[in-house]
Amino acid sequence: MNGADVLCDVLLANDVTVCFANPGTSEMHFVAALDRKPEMRCVLGLFEGVVTGAADGYARMTDRPAATLLHTGPGLANGLANMHNARRAFSPMINIVGDHASYHLPLDAPLTSDIEGLAAPMSNWVRRIAGPEDVQPATEAAFRASLTPPGVTTLILPADAAWGDAAPASPGKVVLPPPPALDRDAVRTTAAAIRAAPGRVGMIVRGRAARADALEIAGQISTAFDVRLFGEVLIARMQRGRGRVAPTRIPYPIDAATALLSDIDVLVLVGGKEPVAFFAYPGKPGRLVRDDCQVLTLAAHGDDLHAALEALRDELGVKPSQQADFATAFPDDAAPSGGLTDDAIALSIARKLPDNAIVCDEAVTSARRFFALSAFAAPHDYMMGTGGSIGGGIPMATGAAIACPDRKVINLEADGSGMYTVQGLWTQARENLDVVTIVFSNRTYAILHGEMKNVGVNAIGENARRMLDLDHPALDWVSLAKGMGVEAARADTCERFDALLDSALSRRGPFLIEAVI
Amino acid sequence: MNGADVLCDVLLANDVTVCFANPGTSEMHFVAALDRKPEMRCVLGLFEGVVTGAADGYARMTDRPAATLLHTGPGLANGLANMHNARRAFSPMINIVGDHASYHLPLDAPLTSDIEGLAAPMSNWVRRIAGPEDVQPATEAAFRASLTPPGVTTLILPADAAWGDAAPASPGKVVLPPPPALDRDAVRTTAAAIRAAPGRVGMIVRGRAARADALEIAGQISTAFDVRLFGEVLIARMQRGRGRVAPTRIPYPIDAATALLSDIDVLVLVGGKEPVAFFAYPGKPGRLVRDDCQVLTLAAHGDDLHAALEALRDELGVKPSQQADFATAFPDDAAPSGGLTDDAIALSIARKLPDNAIVCDEAVTSARRFFALSAFAAPHDYMMGTGGSIGGGIPMATGAAIACPDRKVINLEADGSGMYTVQGLWTQARENLDVVTIVFSNRTYAILHGEMKNVGVNAIGENARRMLDLDHPALDWVSLAKGMGVEAARADTCERFDALLDSALSRRGPFLIEAVI
Repeated sequence: MNGADVLCDVLLANDVTVCFANPGTSEMHFVAALDRKPEMRCVLGLFEGVVTGAADGYARMTDRPAATLLHTGPGLANGLANMHNARRAFSPMINIVGDHASYHLPLDAPLTSDIEGLAAPMSNWVRRIAGPEDVQPATEAAFRASLTPPGVTTLILPADAAWGDAAPASPGKVVLPPPPALDRDAVRTTAAAIRAAPGRVGMIVRGRAARADALEIAGQISTAFDVRLFGEVLIARMQRGRGRVAPTRIPYPIDAATALLSDIDVLVLVGGKEPVAFFAYPGKPGRLVRDDCQVLTLAAHGDDLHAALEALRDELGVKPSQQADFATAFPDDAAPSGGLTDDAIALSIARKLPDNAIVCDEAVTSARRFFALSAFAAPHDYMMGTGGSIGGGIPMATGAAIACPDRKVINLEADGSGMYTVQGLWTQARENLDVVTIVFSNRTYAILHGEMKNVGVNAIGENARRMLDLDHPALDWVSLAKGMGVEAARADTCERFDALLDSALSRRGPFLIEAVI
Repeated sequence: MNGADVLCDVLLANDVTVCFANPGTSEMHFVAALDRKPEMRCVLGLFEGVVTGAADGYARMTDRPAATLLHTGPGLANGLANMHNARRAFSPMINIVGDHASYHLPLDAPLTSDIEGLAAPMSNWVRRIAGPEDVQPATEAAFRASLTPPGVTTLILPADAAWGDAAPASPGKVVLPPPPALDRDAVRTTAAAIRAAPGRVGMIVRGRAARADALEIAGQISTAFDVRLFGEVLIARMQRGRGRVAPTRIPYPIDAATALLSDIDVLVLVGGKEPVAFFAYPGKPGRLVRDDCQVLTLAAHGDDLHAALEALRDELGVKPSQQADFATAFPDDAAPSGGLTDDAIALSIARKLPDNAIVCDEAVTSARRFFALSAFAAPHDYMMGTGGSIGGGIPMATGAAIACPDRKVINLEADGSGMYTVQGLWTQARENLDVVTIVFSNRTYAILHGEMKNVGVNAIGENARRMLDLDHPALDWVSLAKGMGVEAARADTCERFDALLDSALSRRGPFLIEAVI
């Protein structure tokens, strides 16, 4: 048995059973080893951004790492942008990057590059396997590092470590350390602050604090002490919909965000960081809360967030039977009609969302209304790109569908963003994944038109227009999807959109709707 | 005037007149500055690999840098793979990477990342602009660094350096240092070695030594002293075709390469490095020449290669009137017929190549016959991806077409490779570029099937097959092209292919032929 076999065995022993892959020559022994392990599901992406983005989506839905297989420095480089999103989402992930045999590196063959240097900015943990005997400890360390606390790990596999003889291994399960003990001081401090400032306390939930059960506890506290619940500007995952407590998302535009938070005297963080402006603008603040706002961390990433919320509830004397406020029915459930608009699409999807769907939202400007409406939709999981790196949506939907084969995945996708990793549609076809992609086809980087106004440019000229608009020619998403084996159709009225969505939701398998707005 | 204006002025003063771009919010002031400079041609790519790959193609054809505009760390990351190719091709390039305002970085907003860390592995030179007053010196330094010797430079532009007030600049042309003086000792040593080992000397030409005029000098030496001329495994650019001296390309498979070089006692490098195996394989050598082969550098990257070849010719006493051997007519010019094969496609293209065409070859396994045939084709420029990073072809063709609007560009593209940066087709449509893309649609990563055999796996199973084949579903390149506004058609016979190629060559503008093999 060789090092590559050991690597597979360690992954499988720890229930890492999916490998998103785009292999190259230096990984052939690893591919051969995977080929001897039919219990490992190998999923090909035709571009590495699909591979890492799918691993991110998979991790968000399972709380477990998938492996990725990437080919040397350039293959890793192509996957970095979605590793950035995954890192910001605290998604566990084990990237396995093949490299030249160690003795080949000094020859500086064409593909030679500084893999550690490339990996470090977008990884929480990086290690180069020293040789065949190091495969088992290094892979176990990578698995452990991917989960304590959850994050992106990168393991560099030199070809000679993969093909070299390794002692037969019978790897067992890696024992993970328990989460850090509850910070009782933080619980007491937070409780005191909540009591002291009724109506002027905000709480941001993220990670496992944004799952339905934890949200309910946060909601009980919110109802009992008038604490306002928020989600971050970019939400890694939140359980959402009727019967669930519905935090308000902090808006992306700075003025709206600072207005929302203007009367918050105490901000409690549960699993996240203090929100800041996505970008700096001349004369505008970088922090979104007032400078005199007290920011308290109840629990941080890696802590047991559910236990921390329970402890806070108890400390505040709120009973487990306390009712939490949540949405029940749509405030206005009339079906939209006539010419298609982004808001009409958002409403249609919210109205028709199947139970237990997964929504991957990379529609940027176009689906902004959806999140508010989703509080009234059928229960679902909601996810966004978290690092601001474009091209996460299609891959994330792909990975979520692999993770949850019995759930419908709805991908709200901007046309500009969708093009970055459009290759992911092919993987959806190959794997027959149950994903409905809805492309908001506005034929522009709409967000950048807004940003030009933000920097004081109101009339744009030829050069700017050519960099901000996606017209001349318009993208034809129906043909693009067809080219990758995904059925697709186009809608430019609400009625047509609704009919297509009904059809897509009533069948299994990938479908794309180009919604022309 | 602000820093972004100064940046544009410095670029334009130095004849950097093309900016391949994929902007984001942190670059809005730069976009606004570009908008005030209609003499700068801004070319949008829908993915950053298109942007940097196009800059590489542009640089190879003009020997001048284009600028690129990339959005923070993730945008840069998406462009790294083609920067790797450009770096290996010694292509001059000025990447301008927007970053947050400097005072915003400590807040660790979602897009914050280690841009220097990401850039360094794929750049020859990296600098962060310190503020508005640093824009002019930093941009001038980047321009100088991109050309002395030619290479990839990355300039990080913080948003506050772009928007901050800068003194009105009247930048002049940057004075570039002359190339290093000719190494007369190397000339004498090389001449002596050539005289001492008739018939057993090889010479590898690259860079400007692979242009027609320099090739002719090398050919004169070759004819007079029985020196064998080689091109590297991956050729950055070589002028090629009837009436031109035609070096033999060193083959990619190690056994073929070592066999070709087995009787070479002296290897002379002109602008390049000693050739090595692309990958290591158990039991096979890394160096391609014999261990006792004497390797001499006549001149290195950055030297005046043409002058070095002239000096060598003179030192050897070869007259400028010496005739060089070159190809004249096809050894076999019969039109292929019947079922389409990769060799038939190569022959058809070689036969029909228009005068002065530019051939971008990323067909990997499928077009291997083309290079040998191209010696007999009409005079043309020939370019390959140089770093082994996949996804260079479509962008390179795009950049070459921008550089040389009066020349036909033929892109030989593998289906696997083409998918990595398929978005480049849209830019070809947007800019109405005169590019004919020929996709060798074999629906597999054929090279990896070969590599599996190389590592001793002859019968592959389900997991490997699913990672090496592109079927189920087959990619439909005609639809993909149509989706991006490029006309396309499919051929599966030689006759149909020839008819499509005739049609594509007789008109202007982008066209794609899916050649099913």
